Amino acid sequence: MSQLWSPAVRALTPYVPGEQPRERLVKLNTNENPYPPSPAVAQVLRDIDTEQLRRYPDPDSRALRETLAETHGVAPEQVFVGNGSDEVLAFAFQAFFCQPRPLLMPAISYSFYPVYCKLYDIAYRTVALDDRWEIALDAFDGDNGGVVFANPNAPTGHGHPRAEIARLLSRIQDSVVLVDEAYVDFGGESAVPLVADHPNLLVTGTLSKSRSLAGLRLGYAIGSRELIEGLERVKNSFNSYPVDMLASAVAIAALNDREHFKRCCQQVMDTREETRRSLVELGFEVLPSQTNFLFTRHPQFAGETLFAGLRERGILVRHFNRDGLSDFLRISIGTDEEMRELITALEAMI
Amino acid sequence: MSQLWSPAVRALTPYVPGEQPRERLVKLNTNENPYPPSPAVAQVLRDIDTEQLRRYPDPDSRALRETLAETHGVAPEQVFVGNGSDEVLAFAFQAFFCQPRPLLMPAISYSFYPVYCKLYDIAYRTVALDDRWEIALDAFDGDNGGVVFANPNAPTGHGHPRAEIARLLSRIQDSVVLVDEAYVDFGGESAVPLVADHPNLLVTGTLSKSRSLAGLRLGYAIGSRELIEGLERVKNSFNSYPVDMLASAVAIAALNDREHFKRCCQQVMDTREETRRSLVELGFEVLPSQTNFLFTRHPQFAGETLFAGLRERGILVRHFNRDGLSDFLRISIGTDEEMRELITALEAMI
Repeated sequence: MSQLWSPAVRALTPYVPGEQPRERLVKLNTNENPYPPSPAVAQVLRDIDTEQLRRYPDPDSRALRETLAETHGVAPEQVFVGNGSDEVLAFAFQAFFCQPRPLLMPAISYSFYPVYCKLYDIAYRTVALDDRWEIALDAFDGDNGGVVFANPNAPTGHGHPRAEIARLLSRIQDSVVLVDEAYVDFGGESAVPLVADHPNLLVTGTLSKSRSLAGLRLGYAIGSRELIEGLERVKNSFNSYPVDMLASAVAIAALNDREHFKRCCQQVMDTREETRRSLVELGFEVLPSQTNFLFTRHPQFAGETLFAGLRERGILVRHFNRDGLSDFLRISIGTDEEMRELITALEAMI
Repeated sequence: MSQLWSPAVRALTPYVPGEQPRERLVKLNTNENPYPPSPAVAQVLRDIDTEQLRRYPDPDSRALRETLAETHGVAPEQVFVGNGSDEVLAFAFQAFFCQPRPLLMPAISYSFYPVYCKLYDIAYRTVALDDRWEIALDAFDGDNGGVVFANPNAPTGHGHPRAEIARLLSRIQDSVVLVDEAYVDFGGESAVPLVADHPNLLVTGTLSKSRSLAGLRLGYAIGSRELIEGLERVKNSFNSYPVDMLASAVAIAALNDREHFKRCCQQVMDTREETRRSLVELGFEVLPSQTNFLFTRHPQFAGETLFAGLRERGILVRHFNRDGLSDFLRISIGTDEEMRELITALEAMI
């Protein structure tokens, strides 16, 4: 603790991302896509006129917003872009949730949400998951300054159909409902079509998972013009140009290659089902997943034991030592070969 | 104004960056470098293994921090990196200046500083420039929660020698002194060597100007381990990976091409002196500059008139309609040919 730090900064509890190991491991711990991004990405980087890097990028990221708007069937003015969806989420917390009424969130969801609350001094109230480890949308109720959850949820994997989100929105109309769709492309149902009728709905997305571009840092939000303008006010008081020229060009190329996108998502979903079956055969309980990971526990083995055993065998998965989650492992879906290595390792341990 | 925005966000006055025109103009308004980045940049982008983009980047940006540390003669633990120096400045304001005592800053400096104060609800007090339009360092005095200024200053162009910064630091020891060195490579003297003896000194820099990489968004801070750790706490509560994989690789390549860097900076300084002489011949008052721009006014012509006349002739410069600056133009240093076009246009108008 330094006396030179702002008092509130002394009290922060920063988010801890999944480990990025330096040694060579089967890396199934941060929900990265096992397949490379579209080949158009390499082409864009070969062709780019690097002389233009001397210029500031477009502060409004018009070209990228137009591409995202076309991809999602909305107007460019309904799209906000940022340096990863973490940044977009941070801006959204500041733009909409800094107010006296408490923010509502699931007790188990993306663990960055409470970190943002601390960063911006936002009061929040958590709602327990139901007995199937699903978000109890009906429990988001009463006086609130907003609602935030991931759909499909992490690390549990369950996604609510759009009709259930619509029912939530029919009840909550005077605060912002933020639906974080980082994982939606692996079998979830997007809430984006609801934006047209619900000015208080903000949907965030990322190119990190389904577009295989975690290394690029590109996230976005889709919502009413009114919400997008709120995000722009914060962004323009923080950093005029959060999306650099290369990220913009690469993202546009990746978004336009829909065939590659669909093929990779389908392959991940197929591998997920195959892996699920193998885990069940080994006696694991596996929660239903509409994401690129599985959340699973074994009745006879502690999560920590399985985590350590896999790590010894060169396989890295995610283990959360909190909130009654410590029995579980979150296993990202890799290639078929990587998942066979996982199953073989587990067979040896069980 | 939307009722869905946080109350503080309704009161924001976002920063307005210099115009990025779509038509073809001689663009001397945002202090971009007229020369392309190092040829190593294009090579890096051609050679990059785009498959790796599917992975998250190193959250600690170790390789880039090591390169910056070597460039500046400090330890990697004394370096922080971010998505443009605007982001690094925002983190610094939150990490060090969110406290009851007022932040001190020059009345005329980078106009983003008061915007950050509003964003983070920081009280500040401005200190007038002296009668030579220079920062009165001695006037940074009394109870304060920190000091921030650009050195060399913008939009005025004057830089204080290191010994004067050292004298300031001998007086101010219990709050953070932030020296923003965005322009230092064009003839200024860096305060980085003072970091070793002053744990409360933070120096920020950018690859946007002297490395010709405004389009990349790469900024950094150098300071004591204690200050860098404060910045990391904020960053890790906001966005785990602010620097993407491409930006890191490109920045390292650019930093390692010191010959290109020196040559471009020298050329900009030579062109600046030539331009200064031409402006003086036309009757302009030109403030001394250690930056890649000139701040200048003409006794017979209003700044706004000159700005509009140049714009009509296809030349874009920056005009600030505030703070007694409205007589002045801030003219970025372009190529020799661009500056000849500028002088020819001014000759036609005067």
